[in-house]
Formats: sequence, structure tokens, C-alpha cells
Amino acid sequence: MIKVAIVGGTGYTGVELLRLLATHPQAEVTVITSRSLRGTPVAELFSSLRGHYDLDFCEPDIEQLSACDVVFFATPHGVAQAQVPALIERGVRVIDLSADFRLKDISTWEQWYGQEHAAPSLAQEAVYGLPEVNRAEIVGAQLVACPGCYPTAIQLGWIPLLEAGVVEPAGLIASAASGASGAGRQGKTDLILAENSDNFRAYSATGHRHLPEIEQGLRQVQPHDASPAQVTFVPHLLPMIRGIHATLFAKSQTDMSPLELQQLFENRYKNEPCVDVLPAGSHPQTRSVRGTNMCRISVMQPQDRDTLLVMSVIDNLAKGASAQAIQNMNIMFGLTETLGLESPALLP
Amino acid sequence: MIKVAIVGGTGYTGVELLRLLATHPQAEVTVITSRSLRGTPVAELFSSLRGHYDLDFCEPDIEQLSACDVVFFATPHGVAQAQVPALIERGVRVIDLSADFRLKDISTWEQWYGQEHAAPSLAQEAVYGLPEVNRAEIVGAQLVACPGCYPTAIQLGWIPLLEAGVVEPAGLIASAASGASGAGRQGKTDLILAENSDNFRAYSATGHRHLPEIEQGLRQVQPHDASPAQVTFVPHLLPMIRGIHATLFAKSQTDMSPLELQQLFENRYKNEPCVDVLPAGSHPQTRSVRGTNMCRISVMQPQDRDTLLVMSVIDNLAKGASAQAIQNMNIMFGLTETLGLESPALLP
Amino acid sequence: MIKVAIVGGTGYTGVELLRLLATHPQAEVTVITSRSLRGTPVAELFSSLRGHYDLDFCEPDIEQLSACDVVFFATPHGVAQAQVPALIERGVRVIDLSADFRLKDISTWEQWYGQEHAAPSLAQEAVYGLPEVNRAEIVGAQLVACPGCYPTAIQLGWIPLLEAGVVEPAGLIASAASGASGAGRQGKTDLILAENSDNFRAYSATGHRHLPEIEQGLRQVQPHDASPAQVTFVPHLLPMIRGIHATLFAKSQTDMSPLELQQLFENRYKNEPCVDVLPAGSHPQTRSVRGTNMCRISVMQPQDRDTLLVMSVIDNLAKGASAQAIQNMNIMFGLTETLGLESPALLP
Amino acid sequence: MIKVAIVGGTGYTGVELLRLLATHPQAEVTVITSRSLRGTPVAELFSSLRGHYDLDFCEPDIEQLSACDVVFFATPHGVAQAQVPALIERGVRVIDLSADFRLKDISTWEQWYGQEHAAPSLAQEAVYGLPEVNRAEIVGAQLVACPGCYPTAIQLGWIPLLEAGVVEPAGLIASAASGASGAGRQGKTDLILAENSDNFRAYSATGHRHLPEIEQGLRQVQPHDASPAQVTFVPHLLPMIRGIHATLFAKSQTDMSPLELQQLFENRYKNEPCVDVLPAGSHPQTRSVRGTNMCRISVMQPQDRDTLLVMSVIDNLAKGASAQAIQNMNIMFGLTETLGLESPALLP
Repeated sequence: MIKVAIVGGTGYTGVELLRLLATHPQAEVTVITSRSLRGTPVAELFSSLRGHYDLDFCEPDIEQLSACDVVFFATPHGVAQAQVPALIERGVRVIDLSADFRLKDISTWEQWYGQEHAAPSLAQEAVYGLPEVNRAEIVGAQLVACPGCYPTAIQLGWIPLLEAGVVEPAGLIASAASGASGAGRQGKTDLILAENSDNFRAYSATGHRHLPEIEQGLRQVQPHDASPAQVTFVPHLLPMIRGIHATLFAKSQTDMSPLELQQLFENRYKNEPCVDVLPAGSHPQTRSVRGTNMCRISVMQPQDRDTLLVMSVIDNLAKGASAQAIQNMNIMFGLTETLGLESPALLP
Repeated sequence: MIKVAIVGGTGYTGVELLRLLATHPQAEVTVITSRSLRGTPVAELFSSLRGHYDLDFCEPDIEQLSACDVVFFATPHGVAQAQVPALIERGVRVIDLSADFRLKDISTWEQWYGQEHAAPSLAQEAVYGLPEVNRAEIVGAQLVACPGCYPTAIQLGWIPLLEAGVVEPAGLIASAASGASGAGRQGKTDLILAENSDNFRAYSATGHRHLPEIEQGLRQVQPHDASPAQVTFVPHLLPMIRGIHATLFAKSQTDMSPLELQQLFENRYKNEPCVDVLPAGSHPQTRSVRGTNMCRISVMQPQDRDTLLVMSVIDNLAKGASAQAIQNMNIMFGLTETLGLESPALLP
Repeated sequence: MIKVAIVGGTGYTGVELLRLLATHPQAEVTVITSRSLRGTPVAELFSSLRGHYDLDFCEPDIEQLSACDVVFFATPHGVAQAQVPALIERGVRVIDLSADFRLKDISTWEQWYGQEHAAPSLAQEAVYGLPEVNRAEIVGAQLVACPGCYPTAIQLGWIPLLEAGVVEPAGLIASAASGASGAGRQGKTDLILAENSDNFRAYSATGHRHLPEIEQGLRQVQPHDASPAQVTFVPHLLPMIRGIHATLFAKSQTDMSPLELQQLFENRYKNEPCVDVLPAGSHPQTRSVRGTNMCRISVMQPQDRDTLLVMSVIDNLAKGASAQAIQNMNIMFGLTETLGLESPALLP
Repeated sequence: MIKVAIVGGTGYTGVELLRLLATHPQAEVTVITSRSLRGTPVAELFSSLRGHYDLDFCEPDIEQLSACDVVFFATPHGVAQAQVPALIERGVRVIDLSADFRLKDISTWEQWYGQEHAAPSLAQEAVYGLPEVNRAEIVGAQLVACPGCYPTAIQLGWIPLLEAGVVEPAGLIASAASGASGAGRQGKTDLILAENSDNFRAYSATGHRHLPEIEQGLRQVQPHDASPAQVTFVPHLLPMIRGIHATLFAKSQTDMSPLELQQLFENRYKNEPCVDVLPAGSHPQTRSVRGTNMCRISVMQPQDRDTLLVMSVIDNLAKGASAQAIQNMNIMFGLTETLGLESPALLP
């Protein structure tokens, strides 16, 4: 059994790790930290976990964390970069769900997150945990930086087109929408139900922190001679709990037929257990991946015009965060990649 | 592996059986029927099941069904009573999720369901599949009648009080509310989102079909000399998908202290793997059981007055239907009772 | 034109007053206060009011408020009792939407609200602003205490039965549910959408602050020789924005036929412009009163048993708060009672 | 008083007309038709209208309709084109909310709607009822074709840019989302709450019927020498009742500063009572226009790149249908354009 610690267990990515690991046959959560709730049983905060965990929140302790095989960070940005170096030194493997180690360009990170980075060299060593691109590197990684939710949905949607170089890399347009759990479990007026139910709006349209991550990821897969991908990214807030839907537009630079386009996607992902290319003409639904590690994708060319449309759905807390983190753990520890992640979506 | 057939696989209890059985380690769905969709892949109707089932809907065929170890009926009332007799004759075990075999009094059934009962003698033989009451009978049953969703939540809430004879059996009041999936997957104007979102209303307040089932079940557990339980039952429709919340009021006939009341409940359910008595003072939430076979219950005596309040939550499609059906299957086949039903609730 | 001031304009009852008064033909909002947002245009906080108000939030100032004909308090409890005495002295009329002046028994108020009352004698003078009971007193009142949301729905539902003395006053049971706007516009984790969407739960079941107000109001209308009304009140939180549904159970002490029961209600409210008794057998829907000052009620006797069922719906922010406050203003100033409140509900 | 008839009063645009006209000071609904519900009181179908209308649904009758000053058609496509010619002949003015007379190119209409057009010459005479473009023509029109919901939001968003010729007309991208009321009041499985709550998906991405209407409208306002606007339009279904949000992307062909861009929009709409250009940097919310005839718009240039972003919100049933129809009526009959449409949005 893999001994697992979770740092920051009171947020949504924390409770999602707990939900998924509760039935993982090869992993056991032995430590879960929260400064503010130390001493409180996990199942008291989340009644859904009653009967599944007999564990109290504790203060983060380097000795206790070091005794685990892997430490997940489910914390706001800034926390992992302060605590991870000591763990790395002691040889513990770390999977960070926050934004701390996602960007290779430290100055870009510092600009978007408004603070100095505390462990820039680790950011270089960290492997970006998108298995569909970096599986080989993840196997041996000591530190994995899990992708953000929007970046996961958007990269998986566009990767086949950008790898193949069949769309114009400048002028990419991503109109995406997320369930409210993406904003985390925090008491802000802007997040209360009475402000958000029966309402829809965009936010951070002039610049969202996931933008540089998306562009970094897309550029990584482009042919070397391609001009760098440039994205206009507009996120929206949905009056629902879970799910991200990315609606992706790109200008075609190819004469591929609809069938060839479909095959491009099916071939790219035919060995990927967590990406599902839908039949031509389908519209993916967020509920079809609720609670799962799946990404479902469709591609089409509306009205046979120049714009290629890709739609991609994930569960922001699952493939967009905690389930993908477990997928990374499975890869790192040589387990079947989907172990503990096999349940179908909760539908309806 | 238990070979499973599902008759009527296009509704919500059907797809919920498929969702839960997809990861059941000792059962495999080999037949799923739908007259209207015969030949259609299951995963085409429910995209959440892509990758989990390579099975087409087929017409119900007595030979094919008889080749299975157990047949689940996830059909509207009236269907099972027509098809079950032939299966019973051939020795197949049947778990019926519909209302066909729940009531022992056939004239009551015929009055509430407005048609003649086609298999009245089987209704006598059928075991009412509420494991917390009838576990011993379920073990050897050939035909199990799964309880309705409201009846499950309401009986589990009141059983400790009625068994102990500490409340007035006449004048029981059940104010309950269900998510919209309880109305099934059917295209009625009354069920569309634009009519039900941001709305709340009661329905069938003068008499809901679950009323006689609730009273039958409660009377079964009352002491022999008690006057028969009589319930005023008002169901409401919630603007959400899954979950039943039962708010139960009864006039106290006891001097038990709050602590003794709490202990009455904890003792009654201490060996029940699927009933969770919450700490005193708790308010159960429907989301804490979403997708699971759990029933969470709390009991209190507001303002130390004469009225005892019990609150009980289940997932109407899970403990209220398909998961409880699988619990019954596990008992019938000598498996661990919660096999395949261990995942925590999807929260948030 | 009546010059109106609103103290505490940043919450939901404040913005609802603004919404309704924007088209009131005989009233004009001239002052709106908020300490924290002083200087901010009202329409900047609530974009729905752009083009309707050219008014900034200001600090509460006794001179400015005294220059108005009427001051509405849309503040948390405790605020009005501190500021109202000075206004009353200067002859300004006050309509308080908070709980400060609703209870006549000051010790009960202090017990439930956990603080000393700052103006106990004003609480005696205040008129409880339920027009269907106290219309005559409201006409000449200088200080009106607007009823709470639950108390409005529950009192209007039970008044005909209690006035007629046809139900047992002890053992009354009120199972009620409210949209999330009832909890106000405040950033608490418990109120965010991700915690409340697709979820249903009770709260404060052991004792909610509206309980003494409900009982006070019911006792006021009972015959003098009746034993005092005693209520078990369980409020629930609905995954939606607006609306209260009260499901009310009482033990019958009458032989009235269903028709006579229906007529009792129709007669009681036949001259009430804001109470609508639905045809026998109806189930009121919260959306049928969304945004309006209406209360819709139905009464029935399920299964011809001893329990009388009343269901009552209002919009918690409208008839349950701000619209009823305007109804009171209309009465106080001799206007048509429904002036400015005539728009039908927003449905769907 | 203008005597109003409504043909097809049982759908959402019908009940929205009734809601808005109930308080219109210069119009009175005297006839409302529904073949299937003839004889049923309007207030029986829509309990929100109890007390507002004492009117029964009746069969459409040419004499009765001709006795009115204006007839609104709130019917599915195909109905108006069959009935309108006789009304036009008799000199009655007609406002059609359906798609029948929106397209000038009849073959395009026939291709997208899959049937022969019954009144092609009337389609030429009909005035497209977007007041912000065609006000002068609407004044004298006998037949007004009200714009569709998506076309209203999208045209109003792009008109300033296309009129000014500052964006590339080919390659326009509209990612829009609508509340479920946009699909109408019809009992389809695809529309029930249990299928759509907590879910988000696109639909008709390969080609939606509103596409030719959008392009026709945009081309009408382009400079004569511009290449014709070409749009990729992807509609999505939101888990909520009302509201359309259009997220519009266009490639810039200008060096305008952000301030100039903002001024372009403010100038274009400075005299428009029903279009509100938000301050720079704002994100419009659908709830800010709920139930109103307003369109709120913002424009920005994310990251100073080449893509201009416009966001536009309306209420699909109000400015997207029935309220805009009344705005047209007001213009046709020489009334103040916003008469009866002044209420602020229902928020929260």
C-alpha cells in the first residue's frame, strides 16, 4: 500500500482526493493536514466521508509527511513552493495540485501570481503532469505539477490539431465555462448561491492566470518551426457545481476532410485510457464525465467553413485536479494508470 | 461472477444499475432489454457508460433472461407482474424495482394503481427488500420487491420509534422532498427544467401511491398490541436531480431523555452498514449520500416539546432504488452486503 | 411624492426595495445609506439598477433621514433599535424590515437574539405589519415592524383555522423551505453555490428565531378561550434563489366538509388583495409568486383523516420582506394598497 | 387603449407577453388563442396570472382577431405565414415572434426550416423588428418580424464594430449560451430538469437556424464595400431558466485604443433606451437583465492582442422575444418606446 499524505485537506481538491482514494486498492491516506482544523475528524467536516476515514486533521509536520510515500498538495498557490523543497530533499515524492510548479518561466509566474517564487529551480525540475503528453517523464518524476482545470480541458482539445500543425497558431480562441466548485470552498459574496444560480457571466476575460499555462502547454507540442500558439481565453462561471466545457475555435490551415479530422483525433488518443473521442457530430456533455477522470472530445467543421471547432469536457475537480493527480500517482508508482478511477460518471 | 440481466434499461433506475454494476467485482451485466431501442448500444444512449459496456439493448427474451442468475426489473409498474411468473417458474431469481410486488394487500394495490394485479400469489411470496428489517428472508428469497424511494427514507427514519412504541402511531406526519430524477426519465412538460428550476411545490398531497407501502412497512415493525400506524404523507419536488429528504414528525409517548433517544437510534442501527445515525443536533444533507447506498438519520426533540423530529436522507436512485437492489442481490448471493457499493458520496 | 430613505441598502431586502420603488408612481427614494460603500453609486453595486437610480450610498445622517417622509430599515437586527428612537422623536415614520420590533415580549426577544433590547418601549408601540390582521392599526402607525418571511407564510396559512378554532392549537407542525436569498447577501462558506446546489437540508430545527414571532402572531388571532398555539417549526434550505413554501399540519377539531373548509379560507381572504386562495386540490408553486406581493394558499384534508393540511407560498424577499413593507407604506400614506406592486410573477 | 390579440398563448413567449402587458398602461389583451386549450381560463394554465386576466383561451377566429388593433403571433414557425395574410388584407397590424418573416431570402428560409414558405411576398414586406437598426421602418410597418433571441444578443454586440468596419468580417466567432426556456414549453426528454441541471453542453454546433438570420442582420449594417460577415455560431444550453450570454470574438483591423473602442460603443448606443454599454472592464451578467428589455454589453481587447471581445446579455424571453415585441408595438403606435417595460431586473 502506498502511504499518502494530503496537505490542505479542507478544500474541494482535498475532499475529492479523499473521495477517490477511499476505494483505491493500492493507496491509503495516513496523514491529512489543516492548521485551522487540527484535531477535527475529517468526517466531521465532510459528512460524506463518515465511515470511510477515521482520521483527524493535523498540523503539517515534516517528519510525519516524510514518512509517507507521496505527498499531495491541495493548497492555494504559494504554499507548496515553501514546503516542497524540504520534502524533495528527504526523497519524498510530491504531487502538487496548485499552480506553484506549472510554469517554467519564473518571471511569467511571478507576474501572473504577484509574488516572488520561492523555489525556482524546483519549478524547472518539476514534471508537468499531463499524462497524455508527458507520461514517460512522469514515471520517474519526484515532483509532478498537476495541470490546472481549464488548461487540461483546453490542451487535450487542441493537442491533435497543434501537433499536426493544421491550424493557425495565432488567433486561437477558447471560450470555456466552469462549475462553481472551480472557485474553491471559500466564503465570498460573489460565490453564494443567491448570486450565481440562474445566472451566467464571464470573468477575468482580460487575462486569467491559466492563460500562460495553456500557451506553454500548447507550444510544447507544436512542431519546432511553427509560430507559437497564442490564445484568447475567456472563462465563464456556470450555475452548477462540477464540470468544465471548453469550446475551442481555430482557423484551419488544412484540406483534411471531416473524416480525416475525426481520424486525426481518434488516432492521437487511441491508446489514452482517459480521453474519449466522441463519434463525429457529437456534443460532449459535462455530466457525462461527472466525478471521473475522463475527458470527452468532439471535433467538427461547422458549415464547411474555415473555422475548426473542438469541444472538450472534463470534471474540473477530477480530471481537472484530484483524479488526474491520482492518475499521476499511479504512473509514478508503476500501477495500472486508471486504478481507483474506473467508476462511470454519476448520471443523472 | 453473477450473470445479471436488466429488464427496462433506458430509465434512471436502469442506468443507475449499470453505473453501479460496472465496477461490481462479482457481477456482470450480460443482458439489457429495451423494446424501443433494441440494437442500440447502451453507451450510445448514456455517454457516461462509453468504455464501460459493450452491450446493445435487446428485446426481452425468456430464454436469454433465464440463462442469467438474477434479473432486475427496472420497469414501470405492471411490467414485472406480467413477466416475472415465467422466470420464477424456471428458477431464476428476480429483483423487482417497481411497485408490482411491494404490497401484500392486493385490493389495496389494485385501488392505488388502477389495474388488476396479474400475479397476486407471487405478491404474497415476494420478500420486501428492506434489509434493515427483512435481511433473513432476503437471503433465501427468489423474488425480492425493492422498496420505493420515499418508503425507504421514511421507514428507516421511523422504525426505531415505532418498534419501541414510543410515539403515537396515529397522526404521524411525513413531509418529504425528492429530486426530479424520482419522476423518471420521461418527456413531460411538468418535468422540464424551465418549469422546475428555481421552483418548489408539493404534489399528490391528497394521496401518493407510496402511502400504503409506507404504512404497511411501519405496521410490520410495530408491537402487536399497538394501534396501526397512520401517516399523512406530503411529497414535494425539489429543483435538483438526486436526493430525498424526509422530515418526520410524531407525537411522543415517552419520557426518554434526548440522550436516550439518540441511543435508541444508534443501537437500532449499530450493525447496519447502510444506515448512519448522525451525532445529536445534526441536520442530514442529501448531498452527503449522493450516489451511495447510505441513509443518514438524525433525531431530535425541538424545544423539549411533545413532537419528536426525525430527519432522514437517501439518494432516491441509489438507496431508494438501484443500490438497494444491489444490496439485496449481495445478500441473496451470500456476498458482502456492501460489495460494489463502497464509494463515498460525490461531494461537492 | 413620498420621499423615501433606505437604511442599509446593500443587502437583498435593500435592493428589493429599490427594484420595487423604481416604478412606484407615488414614492421616490432620495436617500440610501451604507457605511462601507459610501460614495459608491447604487447602480455600481447592482447592475440591474443601471438607468434607474442616480444615487450614491451615503453614511446614515439623522438630518438627512429626518427630511424624508418614511425611512425603511433593511438592516440586520440590532441596528434599527439603535437609530429609530431619534427618528420617531422627530416625527418621521419608520418601517423596519428587521426583527427588532416584532416581538412584544422583550425578554423573549433578548433570549432569542442574545442581546439587550435598546428600545423596549418602542417595541410596545410598534405595529406588527401584517395587513391581513392589523390593517387598521397600520394606517396610523408611526413605526411598523414588518413580519419575517417564514412568519408571513405560516401565519397567513393558519389564520383561518386558528381564528375559527377548528384545529388543536398545541401540536401544530410547520415544515417550511426557503430559497437561499433568505440567508442574505453575505459571504459565508455555508452559502456558496457549490455547497448548496443539488442539495437539500433542514437547519435550526431545534429552534429558529422566527418561532416566537410565529407563535405570537397565531395567538393574537385565536379565540380568547383557546389554549395558546404551539408550533414545531422546521425550516429547510432550497437550492434556489427566491421563494418560501410552508407545509402546515394541524389536527382537526371540526366536522367541516372539504367544501366548508375551502369556503372558510375563501371567505377569510375574499377582500385581501395580496392573498389568493387556490381552487380545492391545488398545490401552490413558489414560482407563481416570484417577485410579487402575493401569498397563494391551498387547504386540504388528505385521505379524509384527522390532519388538516395547508400549503402557503410567498416570495421571501417580496411578500416576505420588501414588497410587504411597501404594502405597509401604501396603507400608512393612504394610497391604494397594491400601488407599485401589481406586476405578475416572473414565470417561467 | 390598444386592443391586443395573442395567437398561441400557451408557450413561454405567450405567457411573457401576458406578464408584460398586464401592467401596460396603453394596451389590453382581449383575445388569446389556443386550439388545444380553448375554453380554459388563462389563469388556470399559468397560476402566476390569477387576478390579472379574466380571459379564456379561444380558437383562432379571423373576425375576432381582425377586431383587434394588433395581433402578436407567439407560435412555432409555419403558423404565422399561414394566418397572417388574411389579417394583413384586413388592415390589422401584426407582430410575429416566430421565424416566419425574418429572412428575406426565401430559399434560405426554406432550406433551414425544411418546408415551403406560404407567404414569400409578405416576407419581403415585413420589417425586421430590431429597433436599434430599423426604428424608422418599424413606425409605419404593418408586419413586424421580431428577431430571434440569439440574433438579438449577437447583432447588438457586433453592430458597432461592423458598422465601423474595424473587424475582419469573415471568421467572426459567436459562442453563446441560453437558459432552457429558449427551448420552449414542451415535454421532451432532452429538456427535463434531471437531464439538464448540473450539466452544460453545446447543441446544433454544425448549424443552428439562427445563423442565417444573424448573418443577414450583420451584413445589413456593414459598409457597402465590406466583404460579407461570416459567423461560426455555437449555442450552448445553460442549467437555468432565462438569459442569453453571447461571447463574441472578432479579428481587429484597427488601431483604436481601448478608450476609443469603448467610445465607439457608447456613441452608437447613447440614444438607445434598451441597450446599456457597461463601463470598460465589466463582465455583463444575465441576471442583470432578467425579465427586462435591456441588453447590456461590454467590449474589451484581451492582452492587447488582435482579437476584440464583445460580451452581450439579454433575457431570451424578454429583449429576445416578448418585451422586444412590445417595444415594437410601442414604436408602431407612437407610444413612448419603453412604455410598460420600465421595471428593473429581478435580482437576486
